Amino acid sequence: MSESFDAVDVIVAKRDGRRLTDPQIDWVIDAYTRGVVADEQMSALAMAILLNGMDRAEIARWTAAMIASGERMDFSGLSRPTADKHSTGGVGDKITLPLAPLVAVFGVAVPQLSGRGLGHTGGTLDKLESIPGWRAALTNDEMMRQLDDVGAVICQAGSGLAPADRKLYSLRDVTGTVEAIPLIASSIMSKKIAEGTGALVLDVKVGSGAFMKDLDRARELARTMVALGTDAGVKTVALLTDMSTPLGLTAGNALEVRESVEVLAGGGPADIVELTVALAREMLDAAGRPDADPAAALADGRAMDAWRRMIEAQGGDADATLPVARETDQVLATSDGVLATLDAYAVGVAAWRLGAGRARKEDPVQAGAGIELHVRPGEPVRAGQPILTLHTDTPERFGRAREALDGGVVVAPAGTAVEVGPLVIDRVDA
Amino acid sequence: MSESFDAVDVIVAKRDGRRLTDPQIDWVIDAYTRGVVADEQMSALAMAILLNGMDRAEIARWTAAMIASGERMDFSGLSRPTADKHSTGGVGDKITLPLAPLVAVFGVAVPQLSGRGLGHTGGTLDKLESIPGWRAALTNDEMMRQLDDVGAVICQAGSGLAPADRKLYSLRDVTGTVEAIPLIASSIMSKKIAEGTGALVLDVKVGSGAFMKDLDRARELARTMVALGTDAGVKTVALLTDMSTPLGLTAGNALEVRESVEVLAGGGPADIVELTVALAREMLDAAGRPDADPAAALADGRAMDAWRRMIEAQGGDADATLPVARETDQVLATSDGVLATLDAYAVGVAAWRLGAGRARKEDPVQAGAGIELHVRPGEPVRAGQPILTLHTDTPERFGRAREALDGGVVVAPAGTAVEVGPLVIDRVDA
Repeated sequence: MSESFDAVDVIVAKRDGRRLTDPQIDWVIDAYTRGVVADEQMSALAMAILLNGMDRAEIARWTAAMIASGERMDFSGLSRPTADKHSTGGVGDKITLPLAPLVAVFGVAVPQLSGRGLGHTGGTLDKLESIPGWRAALTNDEMMRQLDDVGAVICQAGSGLAPADRKLYSLRDVTGTVEAIPLIASSIMSKKIAEGTGALVLDVKVGSGAFMKDLDRARELARTMVALGTDAGVKTVALLTDMSTPLGLTAGNALEVRESVEVLAGGGPADIVELTVALAREMLDAAGRPDADPAAALADGRAMDAWRRMIEAQGGDADATLPVARETDQVLATSDGVLATLDAYAVGVAAWRLGAGRARKEDPVQAGAGIELHVRPGEPVRAGQPILTLHTDTPERFGRAREALDGGVVVAPAGTAVEVGPLVIDRVDA
Repeated sequence: MSESFDAVDVIVAKRDGRRLTDPQIDWVIDAYTRGVVADEQMSALAMAILLNGMDRAEIARWTAAMIASGERMDFSGLSRPTADKHSTGGVGDKITLPLAPLVAVFGVAVPQLSGRGLGHTGGTLDKLESIPGWRAALTNDEMMRQLDDVGAVICQAGSGLAPADRKLYSLRDVTGTVEAIPLIASSIMSKKIAEGTGALVLDVKVGSGAFMKDLDRARELARTMVALGTDAGVKTVALLTDMSTPLGLTAGNALEVRESVEVLAGGGPADIVELTVALAREMLDAAGRPDADPAAALADGRAMDAWRRMIEAQGGDADATLPVARETDQVLATSDGVLATLDAYAVGVAAWRLGAGRARKEDPVQAGAGIELHVRPGEPVRAGQPILTLHTDTPERFGRAREALDGGVVVAPAGTAVEVGPLVIDRVDA
């Protein structure tokens, strides 16, 4: 950095609604990473960005500066094209598990660098760690070898990618500045661009269980990210998908692995199959395999084979019995009728409280904890019928989990028309 | 504090434009003072307050919470009514020096708890410390005794008043959140209310050398502070006064003391006399002395007597020779004409660079450094005539001081109409 700035001047510029210049952005990200700009200065800037916004060029520069704070990966030595998927996070969102091996079936490398869960949305690594022996941490060499051999890898993102983002994300989390679209978009895209994927499909969730509660903001986030990826030379597409009710019939680590294996065996809930196939199609298209038929590869066992190879390459026992929680409890329908609402956020918080998620980064998770859904919105119920089964090793948590579900499970009188919207709401491309 | 909150919830409420509740405000100020709410959280909240505002009741509660963070003083044991003055700060603003003894002449106690300068505006304590022997730090007992004996005291504010404000002020200074009117108003008023004065006159400066550059914002600040004082039972009035050009003919510590003594001797620049008398009248009215004649007390030596007693009570030698800077340099008119502009901010920064002010709290100041003005806006000048004399002990600073003056001293062709506005622009009362 040849130029130097005063942090207050940068903050004041954004506070007063002005554009940040390229040198200001480069400097503030670098200086924050080095600890020259203090946390209290960056949080004030983040709040000013949240309230006053950034334009497309500012966001692109901010993202580039975050990428420049760390290392970049390079998949150009692989014999296959690469495609990656990122979900903004939802309840019961286990799609990565069947999706990565499914896409790999068609000769596309899927380097899925993932994270752990925090709050009410689960983490892909937490789910896979319920498989005995499976390990999340790979070296770069191990990852490359697995991509060449198996085609799919789901592993922990190294700490070298966009370290500025890691520092900024922790700060945003405690300062009420998580919800800024420019900062969300640059956080996600800096890591994906640094990772070096050739194609990227974004699953932008919208609804109560998602980060974005309303469609307009979700669409704005999707457009912002697609623009960032495109400007950086990554073929990027986004699907806007519904997260008003959980995906599939499970929320929780081992529970979701079990459901994913059902999908890979050609069965599983219809919504999981639909979204897995839709995202696979987008990834395959973007990676130059428009003629691939992912639905067939689920049905005929090729995806399951790839799954087994992927799990075993990382030390996992694909045949092992998955952990089961020690205690269960059921939530019953109190009247006859139709399930009008099964709120994703309520289910997510309840699963989290049962032990499936963590409140702080250091907390452990329970592999067996979570929630099974027996009915989906729009389906009829009879009084006394189980709607949910709660799973936990720590039954003293049932009470707090039930509190979270309060108002989130609604049975309407029989005959009430319950509108169930489409799962894939919209598609955004460059 | 019986209730507890999550800092992020409080930040998000203000970020999203909602009112903070009384318990939220009480908690966040207390928790910040105790270090439970972190600096990076308070700075995000301060930015949200700056951009989204607070209503009158929120500001009043915020101020009350800051007062509750420390001790309160009590002047009810004094035999005299109390009146205090606060200026939002300007260039050449030495008014406190003649004003405090002048008001004391009429049996009103003036407890003037003051600060040091930071940046381009001078500090009253820095000015008085150029008087040999004078000391700024008094115990509460010494202050009370002096108020009873002399009637006027100008001393350093103790650290016990509104400690939350001191912590918050330092934070705002480095996070671009100084300019939030609710935070400026509560910062000033928390200390003045905690100090326990019965009457308060606010001198709200407006113009290039002031904190508030435009009249609308200055008026909003004045109204906010008058409302806060009134709601807290302090008789509060504000004058909006011009700070587009320096007050009087000097900016700098010993230079301003010398000019103040001229005013106390019945002379001095007309604008200093005008503002001193106007503020004295307001303080005397508010303290129940409407018939007092402050102009007479400047003319007949009574104010000078009170000044000498006040300085001597704090160890100062009122007859001592004041320090003089080692070097001087003159800024000359380059053409004939009329002085159109003598910009307060430019003169303030130049005086600061000459050594009259400090960049950091720990820095020393030069007693003799500063600037003398030989011409005021609207007056004629001839080519080669001195407009300013620069004073410093460190002549290598002349260059940087002259840079600060660049564009701030403008001579227009002879005959140009130069509009000089009134010194007292408006008055705001409850």
